[in-house]
Amino acid sequence: MKDTTIIYGKNAIIEALENEEREFNKILISNNARADAKIEQIKKLALQKGIVFQFVAKEKLNSIEPDGRHQGVIAQIAPIKYYDLDEFIEKHKGELSSVVLLDGVEDSHNVGAIIRSCVCAGIKGVIIPSRRGVLINSTVEKTSAGATSHISIIKVNSPVSAIQKLKENNYWVIASDHHAEHNHYEIDYTDMNFVLIMGAEHAGISKSLLKLADYKVKIPMLTNFNSLNVSNATAIILFEYVSQLCKKNNKK
Amino acid sequence: MKDTTIIYGKNAIIEALENEEREFNKILISNNARADAKIEQIKKLALQKGIVFQFVAKEKLNSIEPDGRHQGVIAQIAPIKYYDLDEFIEKHKGELSSVVLLDGVEDSHNVGAIIRSCVCAGIKGVIIPSRRGVLINSTVEKTSAGATSHISIIKVNSPVSAIQKLKENNYWVIASDHHAEHNHYEIDYTDMNFVLIMGAEHAGISKSLLKLADYKVKIPMLTNFNSLNVSNATAIILFEYVSQLCKKNNKK
Repeated sequence: MKDTTIIYGKNAIIEALENEEREFNKILISNNARADAKIEQIKKLALQKGIVFQFVAKEKLNSIEPDGRHQGVIAQIAPIKYYDLDEFIEKHKGELSSVVLLDGVEDSHNVGAIIRSCVCAGIKGVIIPSRRGVLINSTVEKTSAGATSHISIIKVNSPVSAIQKLKENNYWVIASDHHAEHNHYEIDYTDMNFVLIMGAEHAGISKSLLKLADYKVKIPMLTNFNSLNVSNATAIILFEYVSQLCKKNNKK
Repeated sequence: MKDTTIIYGKNAIIEALENEEREFNKILISNNARADAKIEQIKKLALQKGIVFQFVAKEKLNSIEPDGRHQGVIAQIAPIKYYDLDEFIEKHKGELSSVVLLDGVEDSHNVGAIIRSCVCAGIKGVIIPSRRGVLINSTVEKTSAGATSHISIIKVNSPVSAIQKLKENNYWVIASDHHAEHNHYEIDYTDMNFVLIMGAEHAGISKSLLKLADYKVKIPMLTNFNSLNVSNATAIILFEYVSQLCKKNNKK
């Protein structure tokens, strides 16, 4: 394995172990790690899959992950496999599919939390422009609680071309924009493929992308403090979609 | 000013300056800070309010906030004023009022993001049990983007007594619980005072609190990856309430 990255934290490592596609180099467990159910599960899964695990001094883990949030376990794994947009579109042809594009979202904690919400909401992919945003790093993996292993992460060079390609393939383009006329709950998300574009917290979505939107939606606020965290804003819109879908299915 | 705390980041400081109730000691601005619109606004507000500001070497700011997220400006201010629950209830008597109680939410980033969503959603207070959770620190202030200045933060010793007191004062108790029978959107939030209880991500809400709930609600998931970040979960429920209120007011 030439390139490796690290992931840390018990849940993130368990999720990665349960994903057939993640390739492990080895797992380092602290000598002092409490032998709790999750550490036991990590050891068991590693044994089943023939992955080396080593007990090391806690200081060794601290030198790899200096913020001390490793919870006594770090895995060296192959970097996440990024999908190509064509590959993604092809994979989901013939089914309803939805994807989120992050335009300039640069905080790793937000990207991780967004990926986590996407997986919970049944979103099939997250598009990250390679020049505007963070790629998947250890903080993203940890904050996502392992969700990166359950969704296609698509890296694109040009978000504009990506949106155009999605439009050609029958995806409707929804942009979150706090100047929008419509509230996010006024759209029926349930019967279409869609790509939801979320912008950076202060800058918003770039104009070239906004122009391509079929729908612009805003989240109404009850005060003048008009400033939701971007991962919360994403969750609010995605779970409006989930609510609509659940209501529809209950009606049938 | 005996006790001081620090807040950092341009938005957090602007929000605090705009709040009549926050008492400043002084503001430190980095020599190298770009003279952008927000730094100018901070200087202008400080002059108006007679607050001392000093230009200092960036290293000085780094020594106060070693993570380097201060954006070139740090303020020394009096610690936030915590409200007493009785005081809060009295203040909002005669109007519809809602409040969020955080039961064991320990991550400062999550607490900050939750306070931010609460302010956007018109929630009047956030209750933090002094023994189970984080109190307001610099990270909370920064992550909240200054929202702590726009909401009552209520510190209580016993969350159970707090809930009982709210019940006696006509607040309905809603608990987020992923074992609940009802989906979060099945409740009409618009015509009542309510307290929404959110628990820690893994442990959930303590049993003694759950027993006091009038409604238990869950957020339905579209996959088995049943693990939303607690700040996202809070935002989803609060903005269901906001949507209901907006829909109702449009109907009138």
